[in-house]
Amino acid sequence: MFQACISCISIMHNWFQNFPLLARLDDGPEKNLLITAQPITWGSGEIVFHAGAPCHQYLLVLEGQIRVQQTSATGREIVLYRIGPGESCILTTACLFSHRPYPAMGITESAVKAVSLSQSVFERLVAQSGIFREFVFNAYGNRLTDLLALVEDVVFTRLDVRLAKKLLELGGATPCIHITHQALATELGSAREVISRALKEFEIRGWIQRSSGQIQIIHPQALRQLAHSEC
Amino acid sequence: MFQACISCISIMHNWFQNFPLLARLDDGPEKNLLITAQPITWGSGEIVFHAGAPCHQYLLVLEGQIRVQQTSATGREIVLYRIGPGESCILTTACLFSHRPYPAMGITESAVKAVSLSQSVFERLVAQSGIFREFVFNAYGNRLTDLLALVEDVVFTRLDVRLAKKLLELGGATPCIHITHQALATELGSAREVISRALKEFEIRGWIQRSSGQIQIIHPQALRQLAHSEC
Repeated sequence: MFQACISCISIMHNWFQNFPLLARLDDGPEKNLLITAQPITWGSGEIVFHAGAPCHQYLLVLEGQIRVQQTSATGREIVLYRIGPGESCILTTACLFSHRPYPAMGITESAVKAVSLSQSVFERLVAQSGIFREFVFNAYGNRLTDLLALVEDVVFTRLDVRLAKKLLELGGATPCIHITHQALATELGSAREVISRALKEFEIRGWIQRSSGQIQIIHPQALRQLAHSEC
Repeated sequence: MFQACISCISIMHNWFQNFPLLARLDDGPEKNLLITAQPITWGSGEIVFHAGAPCHQYLLVLEGQIRVQQTSATGREIVLYRIGPGESCILTTACLFSHRPYPAMGITESAVKAVSLSQSVFERLVAQSGIFREFVFNAYGNRLTDLLALVEDVVFTRLDVRLAKKLLELGGATPCIHITHQALATELGSAREVISRALKEFEIRGWIQRSSGQIQIIHPQALRQLAHSEC
């Protein structure tokens, strides 16, 4: 599932400099605990944890990105959030604290470098270090706000409005988006055929052009207008 | 917003006996901190906190129930969860830790008795007491699982299936449910007119009977079949 490698020990030198709050820790027993963290690397598209798996380590991402998503009994998926450099995972924190298995799946979206603290070191740091607690709980509060925003989005916002927003977000720097209809469905927690129908409608209106595995944004202004319309 | 009353000091005597984990605390400085908690009472239908308000206290509910709900920019609402006796509020915990305002609203559904710990006492207990940390974080993990279940429900489950489940849940002991269509809409994060249409359809099929402010379940077996159908 993951690999501790000799070559990536180089990334361990002062890795916590990527975490401004943790970097404030003075030399001493707490910092000594922190530097027992073990390096882990994953290739792109690897499963970091899956729903139902036990949780025994606290992860801190140094490079790359992990996508956390939930799957329904019928196989439909929705992206909950992403974990990037300098971040930890709220589900991991919750599972470590409540001794429950993971309720969702984490998959790398690129090569990922991370460090892992064992459950016992994590618990000792939470007990002993105010700075570590602040780091863990700040992350927790922020992610919870993200999750509530997701609830608000899926409950209150029409799918075509969410799709327009997502296309603009993915289009960002370039009007050509390389993504399948299924991947868009997973981003939005919808079904592939629903996304395909909505994209076809956007194409008929002249807003986008679809071709195999990619979507060209033709009329971003119209998408923006829909994205900011009454939900 | 809330009231500390002399008469309810009687509920303070060993209030933490309602919280089996906290009751494990031995006499000593941590227990002394815990018993600095102040009693609070609310009547039914009062606002405990509203979205955007700062958070300065940790709440533990002794009696009654608080409903936590989110409101969209357009005024639609969804119930996120309820806090009952022996429970705390994950949003309060998150706001205390991350020093952010409340992202949702809490309203009492009955008369509520609670105790409140000040932010500084909360932080000292988290720092000093492993038992208090375990209580706080267990609750956190459980609520997070509830929130993910809510995401799964609203994203993957059809509204008529969710409505059938909610009617059966509310019907519980009695087939006559006293609830407005608007309150059902808030429970499910839907619009009143959508709920009214779905209820009308249930009535046409002979599953329920609607009258002003109440719904009579006529054919629970049919509702159960829908509730357990493919989502």
